[in-house]
Amino acid sequence: MHLTCVHIYVKKDFVEEFIVATRKNHTATRKEPGNTRFDIIQLENFAQKFVLYEVFESEEAAAFHKTTPHYLEWRDTVQDWMEQPRQGVRYKVIEPNDKNLW
Amino acid sequence: MHLTCVHIYVKKDFVEEFIVATRKNHTATRKEPGNTRFDIIQLENFAQKFVLYEVFESEEAAAFHKTTPHYLEWRDTVQDWMEQPRQGVRYKVIEPNDKNLW
Repeated sequence: MHLTCVHIYVKKDFVEEFIVATRKNHTATRKEPGNTRFDIIQLENFAQKFVLYEVFESEEAAAFHKTTPHYLEWRDTVQDWMEQPRQGVRYKVIEPNDKNLW
Repeated sequence: MHLTCVHIYVKKDFVEEFIVATRKNHTATRKEPGNTRFDIIQLENFAQKFVLYEVFESEEAAAFHKTTPHYLEWRDTVQDWMEQPRQGVRYKVIEPNDKNLW
């Protein structure tokens, strides 16, 4: 499993547009055969901060995602809406240890 | 949905014990009727740092979790193993918007 938390800090005036664009990316990403999860979550007490909880079956599936039209469109669409460069943080999965439970 | 990321920084000598105790808590928590997810993830480049990605169906289900014997046992077991107090960060769920997709 390949898990990344992508931390994103969006400019105040672009929060709604960011959600629309990221939902579109979410829908298409969930259809990739190697994608396991793609949760979009928003900090409860600070609406400009988001985390994308991205889980892929393998390193290869995560790399493939970055070549897809929906990812590239999302990346180009949102790039000027961020207060600072987004930050991807890689994690090892401890549980669920069974791929079928994801 | 009630989503919390619990950030935990474990003392170096207790990482393995922490994983064992937290796996036990994970297994029991997943059996709670109101629990949706309970992922245990470990920072790839710093093994002392963990996140618990906890999702419950409701505020009430999250509150119930904190009354369970397995949570209380976990809390008491791990409390002296932490470098600093753990930090729970609350998020709003944007996607998946459909409860059935969790």
